[in-house]
Amino acid sequence: MVAVAWVGGKVRFIDQTKLPVEEQYLETEDWRVIAAAIRSLQIRGAPAIGVAAAFGLCLALNDHHDAIPGSLRTSWKEAAAGLAASRPTAVNLFAALSRMTSALGDDFTADASCLRERALREAMSIQQEDVDACTRIGELGAALLPPDAVVLTHCNAGILATAGSGTALSIITTAARRGLIRNVYVDETRPLFQGARLTAWELARAGVPHTLITDNTAGSVFRTRKVNAVIVGADRIAANGDAANKIGTYPLAVLARYHDIPLYIAAPTTTIDTSIPDGGGIPIEERNPREVTHPAGVRVAPEGVKVFAPAFDVTPHELIHAIVTERGILHPPFAAAIAALRLPSPASPPGSSRP
Amino acid sequence: MVAVAWVGGKVRFIDQTKLPVEEQYLETEDWRVIAAAIRSLQIRGAPAIGVAAAFGLCLALNDHHDAIPGSLRTSWKEAAAGLAASRPTAVNLFAALSRMTSALGDDFTADASCLRERALREAMSIQQEDVDACTRIGELGAALLPPDAVVLTHCNAGILATAGSGTALSIITTAARRGLIRNVYVDETRPLFQGARLTAWELARAGVPHTLITDNTAGSVFRTRKVNAVIVGADRIAANGDAANKIGTYPLAVLARYHDIPLYIAAPTTTIDTSIPDGGGIPIEERNPREVTHPAGVRVAPEGVKVFAPAFDVTPHELIHAIVTERGILHPPFAAAIAALRLPSPASPPGSSRP
Repeated sequence: MVAVAWVGGKVRFIDQTKLPVEEQYLETEDWRVIAAAIRSLQIRGAPAIGVAAAFGLCLALNDHHDAIPGSLRTSWKEAAAGLAASRPTAVNLFAALSRMTSALGDDFTADASCLRERALREAMSIQQEDVDACTRIGELGAALLPPDAVVLTHCNAGILATAGSGTALSIITTAARRGLIRNVYVDETRPLFQGARLTAWELARAGVPHTLITDNTAGSVFRTRKVNAVIVGADRIAANGDAANKIGTYPLAVLARYHDIPLYIAAPTTTIDTSIPDGGGIPIEERNPREVTHPAGVRVAPEGVKVFAPAFDVTPHELIHAIVTERGILHPPFAAAIAALRLPSPASPPGSSRP
Repeated sequence: MVAVAWVGGKVRFIDQTKLPVEEQYLETEDWRVIAAAIRSLQIRGAPAIGVAAAFGLCLALNDHHDAIPGSLRTSWKEAAAGLAASRPTAVNLFAALSRMTSALGDDFTADASCLRERALREAMSIQQEDVDACTRIGELGAALLPPDAVVLTHCNAGILATAGSGTALSIITTAARRGLIRNVYVDETRPLFQGARLTAWELARAGVPHTLITDNTAGSVFRTRKVNAVIVGADRIAANGDAANKIGTYPLAVLARYHDIPLYIAAPTTTIDTSIPDGGGIPIEERNPREVTHPAGVRVAPEGVKVFAPAFDVTPHELIHAIVTERGILHPPFAAAIAALRLPSPASPPGSSRP
């Protein structure tokens, strides 16, 4: 199973909003469907969003009309802008769009089939690099865990969130294959239950022992059961190591510190945004209040109640024990460790609404 | 609106599982319905459970048959045991049952109507004392808040949880009447959404400004918005001040401490159990996994997933800034403050399953 794939000129993806009740795949030749799928979280997870956006741009090249000069460029720019506007926090989206545009060198004079091939080659590189990064993150991170480890994870940073084996879950499944995992506590992850719906489903498929909890039970788990590590993904990491991830990560980080449990962030280097000095600069998406007032689609709150529904929070670097990337494990001080990677600063894609 | 009342020989209560979508009142003459209502959380909140159990015992006296000697005692003991077995954590339940039995002096030789009157008088005293305690807690606690206060609360410790104006919410509504409340952040309180369903509903009725959040958003609220206090209720407080309350309270306490925000526990002295030296001795109820896997009744998790579902957690006394009771505000060291109250140690009711 892969979250997003290029199959015979179409993008094929699993509808993550239907899991685990239904395992439904969708196919499209329209980048607008991809943008909508990212917005509605049918496709989610920072690296998977990046790969989907790259394939989405490839689809945009089908939109042009040979008879209209400049129509390839117009289609591309429209798609890049539309895809960039789908979600604001995961930097992989903007990095992928920017890289795709660079690959074409802003040269739309070549014939359409040649451009399509060039775009697809780049998108497939982005995909393959993410597959490789996931594998490497799993290997490096698994080495951090003791035998008989009990870990806790939040949201879903697995196969469904990436092109490969995941980030946080790649560490966990790699460690499990080495016989290191006793149990994984899975935060359900309100409001959209990605932990309950997606992570529990992935861990069951992988045969890794796990226990589902409400997010607010993590404190009791830390207090009454031995937990060796908290391992989560990230949606954007600033130059100083501050990391935006699914809402609920920051309180977990504070709790983990209070209990002397290390918090590991697992993310490919494409998630690091060196153009942002610290977490204060990371745009935090606010979602529809209905996701809070109508869990699983059923209203539980009074009509018209005011809601504060940020999709992410920022964990300050001082609460992070290490950041596991495909290029090695970063240790504090993170600013120096990140600077040493000499990452390219992702330029905003043309027409991007990136803040 | 009152959560539980004695009306014309019956117990009348609002079905809290239906709120806020339906405001449905139920009436019964059968203590078994009361026990089932406590178990299913139609009636909930430590003080309200105590009052409901007291009225439930009054109903038990209807069960006897004049022709059978000793049947009054049998009915009473059966009801006391049945009600005691309904939920394990809130001590008010056991305290109320014990007090009711003491009031009868284990003397079932008097005629039924006399016993009924004696029992009802005691139950009404328990109810009235809770009403008075709520009012007093509100007055004392409101004095702790600064003008323009922003507070956060968890679960429901309001009218619905008590015989009166609530504990934590009595403080908040009293302060609001004094013009002190700018906003109340309401944790939705997974798994059963008592914050979203009940607290938001009560605050809307009382005209107090409030904002609903998922439990895992409290960290972001503390970090990005000025919060003056966290105010919650309790289900049982040990002799050293350790307090059991709805799952999610302990992580809030850790977060509040990290952000230098005071955590106030609001509870009548009937919630203090001096027979338990510390929080380790408080029995913690585990609920049906379905409450986690089926939020609002809809399945979100894979079939058969293992779940850890404690209904409560214990906040250690060192994370509590003060305990607001009807007999005054208790400050650390709580062991001395609680000892100075010279509270009666509640005896286990006959046939109780109290651990």
